[in-house]
Amino acid sequence: MNIAIVGAGALGLYYGAILQRAGNEVHFVLRRDYQAITQKGLTVTSPNGDFHLAKVQGYRDPAEIDAVDLVLIGLKTFANRRLVELTTPLMQGNACVLTLQNGLGNEELLAEAFGAERVLGGIAFLCSNRGEPGTVHHMGQGRIRLGEFGGGLSQRATDLAALFNQAGVPCEAVADLRRARWEKLVWNIPFNGLCALTGKNVTELLAHGPSRAQIVAIMGEVIAAGNAQGLSRPIVAESFIEKMIRATETMDGYRPSMMIDRLEGRPLELEAIYGVPLARAAEHGMEMVRVGMLHALLELGESD
Amino acid sequence: MNIAIVGAGALGLYYGAILQRAGNEVHFVLRRDYQAITQKGLTVTSPNGDFHLAKVQGYRDPAEIDAVDLVLIGLKTFANRRLVELTTPLMQGNACVLTLQNGLGNEELLAEAFGAERVLGGIAFLCSNRGEPGTVHHMGQGRIRLGEFGGGLSQRATDLAALFNQAGVPCEAVADLRRARWEKLVWNIPFNGLCALTGKNVTELLAHGPSRAQIVAIMGEVIAAGNAQGLSRPIVAESFIEKMIRATETMDGYRPSMMIDRLEGRPLELEAIYGVPLARAAEHGMEMVRVGMLHALLELGESD
Repeated sequence: MNIAIVGAGALGLYYGAILQRAGNEVHFVLRRDYQAITQKGLTVTSPNGDFHLAKVQGYRDPAEIDAVDLVLIGLKTFANRRLVELTTPLMQGNACVLTLQNGLGNEELLAEAFGAERVLGGIAFLCSNRGEPGTVHHMGQGRIRLGEFGGGLSQRATDLAALFNQAGVPCEAVADLRRARWEKLVWNIPFNGLCALTGKNVTELLAHGPSRAQIVAIMGEVIAAGNAQGLSRPIVAESFIEKMIRATETMDGYRPSMMIDRLEGRPLELEAIYGVPLARAAEHGMEMVRVGMLHALLELGESD
Repeated sequence: MNIAIVGAGALGLYYGAILQRAGNEVHFVLRRDYQAITQKGLTVTSPNGDFHLAKVQGYRDPAEIDAVDLVLIGLKTFANRRLVELTTPLMQGNACVLTLQNGLGNEELLAEAFGAERVLGGIAFLCSNRGEPGTVHHMGQGRIRLGEFGGGLSQRATDLAALFNQAGVPCEAVADLRRARWEKLVWNIPFNGLCALTGKNVTELLAHGPSRAQIVAIMGEVIAAGNAQGLSRPIVAESFIEKMIRATETMDGYRPSMMIDRLEGRPLELEAIYGVPLARAAEHGMEMVRVGMLHALLELGESD
């Protein structure tokens, strides 16, 4: 398959490299890593085994890339004002676009520009960081759940899932992408925000009884708001929260991406992870009180 | 009047000095400042005029102090486990005790030890800091509202108010001390906690729309919880909030005491300002959701 990667950060570089290694033709739109990658290739370090791609097709401008079948979006959502501009030159012929960005609202931006029928979204459970230019560190996981923006289980989504699975990335096509996105928010909203705000990692948060109780309460707010959207099946609060907490207890000392972004002085993905979900909740008459407070205090910190 | 000061920090030293200057016999229980004050006296710097007390009666142990009429408590509430122990030797004869400590629960500790009829409480609107040993800096304000723990406007409270007024401290005796304490919490709970948690001063918080909205919402939670206690007169939410916000807008760049405590690595007065008010609210079926979250996150930070 002929694939373009827009937003070649830790996520875009990792999945792009994995797909190229599996025999796909991959084109990377690059900024920071352009020189390193076009000259020396791309290195992935991973607990699954390091590998190096000697020849990588890198571009400064997406307009230089010929027709592709799939545009894979890994752009950080705080750069979404450039999302459509960067993607437009690539959406020729029958190309479809799969956004693996965080949070809500990304598919909508793409659907408005290119038509809902060309848009898929996915949730990536990936732990990776950029290293030196030309190197990406995969620390663990990588599973993807993807689906049609318009809903329903399409052949196209099933084929894309097969593409990732063949490349070694566990991937599941889901019929209700919105439900998958809200499920991910149940984890992202409390842990990303509280870790970024307090500077504590997930283990420190869970070890403190009152903070753990706040995490559970925040998860409850998110699930209630998600269920108010009319998902295909409601998220069952009690068991899902317990599952999330138990999974997080195994992530010893884990620092979510938003905490690292804050510590390293980068902007946070507040709109996609807080702003849009709060608005969606309000549209259905749900007030996520704790989430609103968390959003306000995270946004306050952005002025530093 | 014969007065003992327990908890001679920025507040205890300031009011003690003012009362001694007005002709009262004041005895200070001292720790950090013992040597400096007993040897060189006590200096107050103030926009109302600096002054120096050459001879100050300082003690390391309250048991060394002879019978007094009034014990004035300025102890930080995080040291309340020592409150009764420090006060007991001074509660001889008809001595009464006036606590000017922050938050809720202090009068109760004293009442349990010495009887409710011997306890008064007051809210101090004071901006002062300790300087070098032997020096206290008064930056502004100083007004006190005091009343009987048991409620009602007593002659004793009126006399104490007169004592402060004669010393130059504006002081009002109130019939409903609980109402005065909840009114103060309407300011303290949002501003102390949010400033300590975020490292922003009151002006920065108010300048950020979403944070300002959280402050208003938190004030609303506190007022609702206070009114549920059955105060003599309910606090009128809208006008009181507007008054508090307007007053705070004049406090350019003000950093509340809890923010300074956090910045300087001291413990925070969490139990008196958050823990007890949350418990009082819960006793009356009120959940202060945002206050609970703020309390949890502040407490989490105490483990640093």
